[in-house]
Amino acid sequence: MSEKYTIGLDYGTDSVRSLIVNVETGEEVASAVYGYPRWKQGLYCNAPENQFRQHPKDYLEGLEFTVKEALKQVGENVVENVVGISVDTTGSTPVAVDEKGMPLSLTPGFEENPNAMFVLWKDHTAMQEAEEINKLARQWKIDFTKYEGGIYSSEWFWAKLLHVIRNDAGVFRAAYSWVEHCDWIPALLTGNTHPKTLKRSRCAAGHKAMWHEAFEGLPSEEFLTALDPMLAGLRQRLYKETFTCDVAAGTLSAEWAQKLGLPRGVVVGVGAFDAHLGAVGAEIEPYYVSKVMGTSTCDMLIAPMEEVGDKLVNGICGQVDGSIVPGMLGLEAGQSAFGDIYAWFKRLLEWPLKNVLAESDLLDEQTREKLIEETSDKIIAKLSAEAEKIPLEESGIVALDWMNGRRTPDANQSLKGAIAGLNLGSDAPRIFRALVEATAFGSKAINDRFVEEGVRIDGVIALGGVAKKSSLVMQIVADVLNMPIKVARSEQACALGSAMAAAVAAGVYATTSEAQKKMGGGIEKEYLPIPENVEKYKVLYEKYKKFGKFIEFDY
Amino acid sequence: MSEKYTIGLDYGTDSVRSLIVNVETGEEVASAVYGYPRWKQGLYCNAPENQFRQHPKDYLEGLEFTVKEALKQVGENVVENVVGISVDTTGSTPVAVDEKGMPLSLTPGFEENPNAMFVLWKDHTAMQEAEEINKLARQWKIDFTKYEGGIYSSEWFWAKLLHVIRNDAGVFRAAYSWVEHCDWIPALLTGNTHPKTLKRSRCAAGHKAMWHEAFEGLPSEEFLTALDPMLAGLRQRLYKETFTCDVAAGTLSAEWAQKLGLPRGVVVGVGAFDAHLGAVGAEIEPYYVSKVMGTSTCDMLIAPMEEVGDKLVNGICGQVDGSIVPGMLGLEAGQSAFGDIYAWFKRLLEWPLKNVLAESDLLDEQTREKLIEETSDKIIAKLSAEAEKIPLEESGIVALDWMNGRRTPDANQSLKGAIAGLNLGSDAPRIFRALVEATAFGSKAINDRFVEEGVRIDGVIALGGVAKKSSLVMQIVADVLNMPIKVARSEQACALGSAMAAAVAAGVYATTSEAQKKMGGGIEKEYLPIPENVEKYKVLYEKYKKFGKFIEFDY
Repeated sequence: MSEKYTIGLDYGTDSVRSLIVNVETGEEVASAVYGYPRWKQGLYCNAPENQFRQHPKDYLEGLEFTVKEALKQVGENVVENVVGISVDTTGSTPVAVDEKGMPLSLTPGFEENPNAMFVLWKDHTAMQEAEEINKLARQWKIDFTKYEGGIYSSEWFWAKLLHVIRNDAGVFRAAYSWVEHCDWIPALLTGNTHPKTLKRSRCAAGHKAMWHEAFEGLPSEEFLTALDPMLAGLRQRLYKETFTCDVAAGTLSAEWAQKLGLPRGVVVGVGAFDAHLGAVGAEIEPYYVSKVMGTSTCDMLIAPMEEVGDKLVNGICGQVDGSIVPGMLGLEAGQSAFGDIYAWFKRLLEWPLKNVLAESDLLDEQTREKLIEETSDKIIAKLSAEAEKIPLEESGIVALDWMNGRRTPDANQSLKGAIAGLNLGSDAPRIFRALVEATAFGSKAINDRFVEEGVRIDGVIALGGVAKKSSLVMQIVADVLNMPIKVARSEQACALGSAMAAAVAAGVYATTSEAQKKMGGGIEKEYLPIPENVEKYKVLYEKYKKFGKFIEFDY
Repeated sequence: MSEKYTIGLDYGTDSVRSLIVNVETGEEVASAVYGYPRWKQGLYCNAPENQFRQHPKDYLEGLEFTVKEALKQVGENVVENVVGISVDTTGSTPVAVDEKGMPLSLTPGFEENPNAMFVLWKDHTAMQEAEEINKLARQWKIDFTKYEGGIYSSEWFWAKLLHVIRNDAGVFRAAYSWVEHCDWIPALLTGNTHPKTLKRSRCAAGHKAMWHEAFEGLPSEEFLTALDPMLAGLRQRLYKETFTCDVAAGTLSAEWAQKLGLPRGVVVGVGAFDAHLGAVGAEIEPYYVSKVMGTSTCDMLIAPMEEVGDKLVNGICGQVDGSIVPGMLGLEAGQSAFGDIYAWFKRLLEWPLKNVLAESDLLDEQTREKLIEETSDKIIAKLSAEAEKIPLEESGIVALDWMNGRRTPDANQSLKGAIAGLNLGSDAPRIFRALVEATAFGSKAINDRFVEEGVRIDGVIALGGVAKKSSLVMQIVADVLNMPIKVARSEQACALGSAMAAAVAAGVYATTSEAQKKMGGGIEKEYLPIPENVEKYKVLYEKYKKFGKFIEFDY
């Protein structure tokens, strides 16, 4: 009997990756990456205004290239045995579509119009609209933001679409409906792109659009038209249901089967967000926090619906049935800055290199640039090595990790970072260590909140760049959380999670958990808390909390 | 009629300077500097233990060298018309002496014994003894520390001598008495070194030894023996009176007149502390703060005795009749770190240069060192230039200037520095500017305290390295204080102040004020507060105070 394979497609911010996985063994047999060419050029964006748009052609070209490229690396026996394909993307990343479900930028007259393109997750042009939504929601008889922790974000569906249609009459007239990136790719692959019938995802089309079973779907027509009369009628052209990623969106259309060189009948799964399928790929389990540690963090926890029920977890930003693992309640939190804080400190220390040494006549330009780059690249590693040598009690510096605001617990984007306990001997490694400890304290504040709200935590599974690279950070986080941290082995957890989801959608496995067991890459390393440090960090964490309370409420 | 001249001798931490000044015109006709050779080699010191001792030979050689060297630069008509010489030194810098008033290290068997040398102002070996003094003073019927703001310092006379005699039986047995550096040089020059008759100074032998008219001199024998029975009898071998610097200690002895090449009959003034005569040299006036701005600050204010009276100014560390200008009450405060905070930030930013770039193979060792030094030297200037361009409201960073504790108001050496309001865009110039603002806020806290305690402030006269060099700092201090700041012209204000004191002691002028008017160098520059900035800094200063209160009392 021949083995079966699935393809995971992972659309990140800068590139898309495909991964072909053996569903029996989990072997990652081939993969390919494609950087978005238009995006790379900075087209359609206006960074100082926080406008970030992506052209669907970047996605389409990437889809074709990465799937074909990966298939080239394997034999015909693999190609013939691909049984499923699933997609994850960033989000909320919606686009205005016509009646056929085509993004307007793929239709005549809109080719170069950023408002007719995907509005990327980190686009912040809709700040004003988000504020209006929050204001209205607070007065409304039903709080449609209650599953978002009471705060609707400018990064989400309704804020973005309202901003676009208010500012572009052409798009307003031509837009029949709106679709999220992670729903449009499966729709396209199955040939069912009609906005009212294409299968929408539980978190992107659900949570980010204030859809909930308790509301019987999207917010009411009354609410939406109160928000803006321009929204009248749109609700009818959207959707009533949302689906989890174990559901099949359909099978590969003849057109796409041919384009990609895959057999017809390949099952296409309902799409999902990248972080969520990353957690799946890193083998998230009930009551484990799957912590994606990069520039910021995404902290995800799953728990059986029947155990947590419909109780809201106060101060946690997302709570969605099936968003991460179908059948489980997905709880989502995160730190607005994590590795970004280390990068900030590195930039600070680089200042003399880039602003003083860069003007030196002692070296020719080429050597100078090489020297600056070389030095700059080694700063974090050297700081980490030095910071590791500092005895825990010695530094006395306590920092707050809010340099980019605070996402959870209790979102407050206006908060800022701080450092206390400095003396004339506070050198770079000591401050760096304090910043690492601050990010660990920020992680503990999230874990504590889950526990205070009655959601227990059994362990942490870490993934992302920081988890892979920094043993200093990981040991400190383990000590501060007083909890073992497992680091997932897979280098491409999101794509692997997509391949797992595809295996479930294609019926190879009955549940995500089963797919994880068979296809998971396991654990690379485990960090165990050092009891002596745990005790010392308890004291410092109290200082962190006290300091934080002052900065938040009294400063 | 030929013009008259005086010599000012200024003993700093690292070197001694002589200055010959025309008493009519104030012209500085000659000067010479001598770095202490033994001190430079680090002899008799133990920096990690904060033990700093200076050999009297460093002082003696410097005395001879600088006076003769300066005299070489002028004609015989000047030499013949030198009428006075006065001395300022650091302090409290006491030494154990024999019955003749000779420092023990100048007597056989003690030549290389650090305990037989001058215990430099910044020597902190007597922390334990200072604590004992404070503890006892708080229980005693009379609070002998009340003119020190209730806190006796480890940098002062009794703490230091007690520490030395407890730890060195040989010195204990051989020490007949103790003398401050600023009293020993005039004693030597006049040939009257006997401990019981040499003329002692009001601040060094007075204030730093808890001498006060109200106590009828030094603390009682009862108090001293309660502190330690080893002190029994010493009080008798010390002094009953102290004098201000307008008083003559005597005239130059035949021996020293010959050694220095000066006429006999030259009047030698009673010595004083360097900061105090610096304030005199910079033309301190009643109700003006004379602010010496260097690594730390010394903030001095004089006011007529009859106006302030014996009322204690709460939280200000020194309050001495005649310490600065004879006949006036001298009030003294200061910031534990000022320029040291900028230097700390520079060291922080230098870290990659000295720890990463220093290991680069791209350059040969010589070029590398040159490049590091060149870059390092330019950091503060470049930071200042960039910080100057930042609009005042923009940064939002507020720092506390307590990186070296807080001297005044309300001494608390255990306090530490802090920085709040950081975000991912907080770059080096923005943080540097906030640190400068913090040092200015620290200055304002001192001024405010004077005013709250009923001592008005009419203006500020700045001197010292920072005052001369940084227009960024000076403008910000003027804006924060909301007060014009005059920068004194003289480059050697302490030595000039000594020369003024000598002119008064020699009877050329009746008062210090008269000497200042004739001999003063005037003002080099005046910084005027910018009204727009004044208003903005009022808001930031409130944040500084709030932040400070939290860190001091609740953190």
